[in-house]
Amino acid sequence: MVNIAVLGYGTVGSGVVEVINTNHKSINKRAGDDIHIKYVLDLRDFPGDPVEDVLVHDYEVIANDPEVDIVVEVMGGIEPAYTFVKRALLSGKSVCTSNKALVAKHGPELMEIARERDINFLFEASCGGGIPIIRALNSSLTADEIDEITGILNGTTNYMLYKMSTEGCEFDTVLKEAQAKGYAEADPTADVEGYDACRKIAILSSLAYGRFLNYEDIYTEGIAKITPEDMEYAKELGMTIKLLATSRRVGDGSFYAMVAPFLLGQNSPLFSVNDVFNGVFVHGNVLGDAMFYGSGAGKLPTASAVVADVVDEAKHLHRNIMTNWSSHPLCLMDMKEVAGRFFVRVKGTTVDQVEAVFGKVEIVNLKQLPGEFAFITSHMKQGEYMDKISALGDSVLTMIRVKD
Amino acid sequence: MVNIAVLGYGTVGSGVVEVINTNHKSINKRAGDDIHIKYVLDLRDFPGDPVEDVLVHDYEVIANDPEVDIVVEVMGGIEPAYTFVKRALLSGKSVCTSNKALVAKHGPELMEIARERDINFLFEASCGGGIPIIRALNSSLTADEIDEITGILNGTTNYMLYKMSTEGCEFDTVLKEAQAKGYAEADPTADVEGYDACRKIAILSSLAYGRFLNYEDIYTEGIAKITPEDMEYAKELGMTIKLLATSRRVGDGSFYAMVAPFLLGQNSPLFSVNDVFNGVFVHGNVLGDAMFYGSGAGKLPTASAVVADVVDEAKHLHRNIMTNWSSHPLCLMDMKEVAGRFFVRVKGTTVDQVEAVFGKVEIVNLKQLPGEFAFITSHMKQGEYMDKISALGDSVLTMIRVKD
Repeated sequence: MVNIAVLGYGTVGSGVVEVINTNHKSINKRAGDDIHIKYVLDLRDFPGDPVEDVLVHDYEVIANDPEVDIVVEVMGGIEPAYTFVKRALLSGKSVCTSNKALVAKHGPELMEIARERDINFLFEASCGGGIPIIRALNSSLTADEIDEITGILNGTTNYMLYKMSTEGCEFDTVLKEAQAKGYAEADPTADVEGYDACRKIAILSSLAYGRFLNYEDIYTEGIAKITPEDMEYAKELGMTIKLLATSRRVGDGSFYAMVAPFLLGQNSPLFSVNDVFNGVFVHGNVLGDAMFYGSGAGKLPTASAVVADVVDEAKHLHRNIMTNWSSHPLCLMDMKEVAGRFFVRVKGTTVDQVEAVFGKVEIVNLKQLPGEFAFITSHMKQGEYMDKISALGDSVLTMIRVKD
Repeated sequence: MVNIAVLGYGTVGSGVVEVINTNHKSINKRAGDDIHIKYVLDLRDFPGDPVEDVLVHDYEVIANDPEVDIVVEVMGGIEPAYTFVKRALLSGKSVCTSNKALVAKHGPELMEIARERDINFLFEASCGGGIPIIRALNSSLTADEIDEITGILNGTTNYMLYKMSTEGCEFDTVLKEAQAKGYAEADPTADVEGYDACRKIAILSSLAYGRFLNYEDIYTEGIAKITPEDMEYAKELGMTIKLLATSRRVGDGSFYAMVAPFLLGQNSPLFSVNDVFNGVFVHGNVLGDAMFYGSGAGKLPTASAVVADVVDEAKHLHRNIMTNWSSHPLCLMDMKEVAGRFFVRVKGTTVDQVEAVFGKVEIVNLKQLPGEFAFITSHMKQGEYMDKISALGDSVLTMIRVKD
């Protein structure tokens, strides 16, 4: 029997209990052992709930019980999650978590402790909800050097952009709708400003490249500036606008990473990742293109990922399985050196003036938006773009990067 | 050091050697050991090739060398692959293979031998080329009961249907083009008749449901009857036609499986899997929808999957890791009991006559195809459809299933 303790009986925690109870037969078969929920920790009481018998209010009970093999941290937030998780690992208990903030901030230290003790600290549910992308990077794509990871990693903003694209809604309208549906929180900053996606791409990049990427180093831009007019231009170009979290190896050992809205063409497998779904595109030097698609959030998909970690930890109780992790920092290129193409909407200038600055560009006009036009630059470094665009002064309405 | 022997130095075999040489540093890090190619078996000589020094013509050398830990079978075909693989397993060597025919036919026996000896028989590359779908089913989606797997598992036919859809070509024209590009073989039967996809869905279903599905039990229909006119109807409906290999749990413990062309709507994540790419859709009872996308064939993507198996076997040299495999047979429902909707093209009949038989149906007319029309039935069992359609006699031009 493998005893687990679930920290937090909120949405994900109750999902974890539900998944383990519903699929206990197949889960135990996969784990090769009987997974038993010995404790659920929560400050609240749940009278009449099946977990009543195993509910504890004091973490000491769990920390001091040597029979607990695996601690499942699904409380969220940095504290007390960090203290609880660290203590569990130090006492030889494996831990799995859905807490991206914890992993992005304290991942290196916690993984180091797990490695030293030959136990595991797993976090499949921290990125892409139910999509098994962490396990793919750690255990499946092991023959490859990963060159690029690009993800739609935030379901809330993907839903909002999808609605703006298909229904022509304004940002504020669609944000209210997302809040009414429970997709966006009362304070939507973490989603719409890209902070959530930023932590996730930091975690995925660290695993893919085998060096720790600090999320605070990643250039991050949200979607609040995107308008229905931008979407109309995208449509005219046969493209769409998505909030992408991306990192890429450039040449030998140089990397860049950013979170920003991008114009995306139909040739990308991420083009059709719509609504609240997430998708993660990976390019490997021998594999080529691959993409993983699924529910990025939600009680049960997230719980599915957490419980898959529990199964893996039960199968590897005294064997560390994170093979491509390192605390050695991943240093990023200066954003000025990152090259790409830029879509720019301008008003009060002419094609001649634009081409005097940028050379030949692709021009887009929309009948319904007279008095303005848009252009797409050739491939250039961002520093060069910044220098050139300043010549167009106040005529610049907006700039959106184009995904190559 | 982990010694491997590669059986077959054809396309995949030379890819395996290339991948191990190119990415040796990261591969050894992932494996936690030094992967060393001790032998390459081929009947031919390769003067000047780097493998010349390790090339052997006689399998006895490999079979009798106790230092060989892992045998990589990439010869294809049933014999002598089956004899070589069985002998390797019986002598305690783990085996990985890209050979779907071998796995579909002898998988249960070979996996049983591996399990008894606590070694491994892995076959990631046998389904979906570089897409890590086998490892996902075995190691990632372990918290779920899988309800459905539906894949575009044959790149050749997907390329052909894509060309028919986008360029309006006839089947014969696009087949010649596929052969000229090297996508289709001189004898294209295995691809276009669905036999290749059939073996793959048999393997994936066996892993997903934990019971052995014999590929010979699967109803299989190819794409030779699909015409550009069918594609025009599909477009009118906002759909496309794909060769799907699918299996599904119906209620508690009943399953069906089939390979057939299907009309597919834009709400399916498989809708955008175009060209030679493969995609595998999975539905889990807690995960919900997920999809895995990538190169279904090709030297390096396939070799990437084979080498990932080598890494996994090196990490688990004396521990069997296929946790959801059983030789217990998976019995399928009678096809007559399988329900769905049916798209039917008719000529020389009327909507009234059709509706007299089928009740209210969805009608599609194409201006460019006067004198005929098409309809989509309501949801019904295939047996009921067969009974009813016979009333329309010779007026039926074609029937294609609709993916729900």
